[in-house]
Amino acid sequence: MKKFEFVEGGVTAAQGFRACGVEAGVKCQGRKDLALIVADQPVPVAAVYTTNKVAAAPVRVDRERTRSGSAQAVVVNSGCANACTGERGVKDALETARLAGAALGIDERLVLVCSTGVIGVHLPMERIAAGLEKAAGCLSGTGGYDAARAIMTTDTVDKQVAVELEIDGKTVTVGGMCKGSGMIEPNMATMLGFITTDAVVHPKALDQALRDAVEVSFNRVVVDGDRSTNDTVIMMAGGAAGNGTLTPYHSQWQYFVDALKTVCLELGKKMVLDGEGATKFVTVRVKGAKTDEDAQMAARAVSKSALVKTSWFGLDPNWGRVIAAVGYSGAEVDESKVQIYYGDICAYDQGRVADKERLMAMRDVMRKRAFEVTVDMHLGDGEDTIYTCDLSYDYVKINAEYTT
Amino acid sequence: MKKFEFVEGGVTAAQGFRACGVEAGVKCQGRKDLALIVADQPVPVAAVYTTNKVAAAPVRVDRERTRSGSAQAVVVNSGCANACTGERGVKDALETARLAGAALGIDERLVLVCSTGVIGVHLPMERIAAGLEKAAGCLSGTGGYDAARAIMTTDTVDKQVAVELEIDGKTVTVGGMCKGSGMIEPNMATMLGFITTDAVVHPKALDQALRDAVEVSFNRVVVDGDRSTNDTVIMMAGGAAGNGTLTPYHSQWQYFVDALKTVCLELGKKMVLDGEGATKFVTVRVKGAKTDEDAQMAARAVSKSALVKTSWFGLDPNWGRVIAAVGYSGAEVDESKVQIYYGDICAYDQGRVADKERLMAMRDVMRKRAFEVTVDMHLGDGEDTIYTCDLSYDYVKINAEYTT
Repeated sequence: MKKFEFVEGGVTAAQGFRACGVEAGVKCQGRKDLALIVADQPVPVAAVYTTNKVAAAPVRVDRERTRSGSAQAVVVNSGCANACTGERGVKDALETARLAGAALGIDERLVLVCSTGVIGVHLPMERIAAGLEKAAGCLSGTGGYDAARAIMTTDTVDKQVAVELEIDGKTVTVGGMCKGSGMIEPNMATMLGFITTDAVVHPKALDQALRDAVEVSFNRVVVDGDRSTNDTVIMMAGGAAGNGTLTPYHSQWQYFVDALKTVCLELGKKMVLDGEGATKFVTVRVKGAKTDEDAQMAARAVSKSALVKTSWFGLDPNWGRVIAAVGYSGAEVDESKVQIYYGDICAYDQGRVADKERLMAMRDVMRKRAFEVTVDMHLGDGEDTIYTCDLSYDYVKINAEYTT
Repeated sequence: MKKFEFVEGGVTAAQGFRACGVEAGVKCQGRKDLALIVADQPVPVAAVYTTNKVAAAPVRVDRERTRSGSAQAVVVNSGCANACTGERGVKDALETARLAGAALGIDERLVLVCSTGVIGVHLPMERIAAGLEKAAGCLSGTGGYDAARAIMTTDTVDKQVAVELEIDGKTVTVGGMCKGSGMIEPNMATMLGFITTDAVVHPKALDQALRDAVEVSFNRVVVDGDRSTNDTVIMMAGGAAGNGTLTPYHSQWQYFVDALKTVCLELGKKMVLDGEGATKFVTVRVKGAKTDEDAQMAARAVSKSALVKTSWFGLDPNWGRVIAAVGYSGAEVDESKVQIYYGDICAYDQGRVADKERLMAMRDVMRKRAFEVTVDMHLGDGEDTIYTCDLSYDYVKINAEYTT
């Protein structure tokens, strides 16, 4: 039973947080590229980072800092990933935090830093310094939108989601923003996510809730274990709502977790919808697999196949590419038991293949902006769902021209 | 020391083999789509098949038949993969072999069958039957070219290679042909390879030689363990050259193996050069890895990344995408030790990044039709090389429009 309502806003939807986005000129002029999110006081923080062995400098700094379980501010710049930038990159990340701390009048160790953009370029520290001064002066309780704009790279729209629910008779808000749009090869596109809540949450419980939520949301559009150098999701819990401290032993814990999962999943779906060059939003469901792991392997293989993705773009009901991807995914499969559906239309039914009429009906399903491809393995109870998009000319254009 | 010379031809370069390619009208009119390769008598045969768990009907038939170690003919059709076609698919594959055996006047159990094309469509058996009658009537010792044309699908050129060498004072020829051009997601594109030789080779030694050759050639452009439903490489050794039987104990065994590896590697390179929409041939070398396995993982990750491939197409010296792919490949990596080269130009040198001038020089390297990207991990002696291509608009076009 759904216990929350969607509301307007993103990282400033929850009480106790201010944010802003300003133009610092990190890479080019005329667009916001520096965001600040600031809590009214030090608050519990949780974070999930890339598993890429080449981690960007800000990731290395934040990993260390979030161990304390407490933070007060996050600085995010777009235009420069500060990755593969050696010792100087780490110094620049630390200096960014120091400058932000000074501008905000808070302990620099409570400042986290995130970067997204081109790899192998150093941060323009003078511009960052000037930008932080500017940003500290324009923080506001309605600044979430500007912040969401400032963290965009090849994104074409800002991505914000917020929900409200009641806990202990108090109104609790969970809101967030994210950036990321390179969904074709999700393991390469930097995804940054920022969630705030005014709920009172025990720091360890916050960490568990965020990990669980990320697993069924961002990790269903961004491949875990195959992350970019900069991927980061940070969550801060301010506590202004005044509810009883949330832990898994609180009677309404699950409502909070469900709300958080929804915020993360909706943010993840927005990334897919804004996928580079994407014209289709495709939900790939695998059920009846021998295990959940098998279902995930099969769904990911289908979702990542360039041949499947181009067929979606071309409105070609080429289910053969789907079953071939399932076949090489590593999942157990018996082709004489498999069923494949495009929407409600059965394309392949345990050895029997769709006729011309059925293929035309599948094509109609594919004409929609969003559709589902379902693979039923009929081998067990394993299931999983991945959200993905097609591969179009524009994907090639965007990524061939995105300049170093 | 190279002990062989390249010569003209493909599967009919070796003595004792005839071939042809005819128009059977499997999928469309006006192009050759049925090939026959026939040895003068039953000969030792070896084969390597897809590891995809969804294997096409002809693969299942051939797997059984090549266990005997002996064969005399191969029928290949393009236009229809005869995959995911259930029991009828297997019956059709067996019937194709029976018809070919009858037309050729040989034991049907000595006939192998291969198919490539669309998945989930049944073979048009009447046309296959008529085509086989026609094919049996036009076999010739110079028919290799027609056969190479008939097995093409989205290939734009036929792919043949042959070499000559001397063994026991006799001239031995090893020749072959292949089809395959979907090199962007190599795990999905059907690759068929056919090698003939007039050398006298012990059947078990032939099997080992083929496996070793495929590992360093086709498996360096087509991902092992991630094969299409139809991938097959078949080799027949006719024996007309009259050399002493080749086994690993023959003093010139290694010359034969090197010649075979060269044939397979050159065929593999031709597939990359003809990659769907490819404008660049890129050799990805990884050296200094902790192990050879690490080197292979890193080289494959770079070669498969859509972001890296689009940057090659866009002449964008975006080495950051290369190091990010290495980072998520699973290989051990220490970014402070890594060097990345485009041709001879160092893009990233153990933490130091290329300046504008260097990036311009890298762009000049990338203007060439073929160039090398080298990653030196400086962690050990592991190395590997993968041959690949870029990702262009035309790849999307070809695969969005390839009709079901």
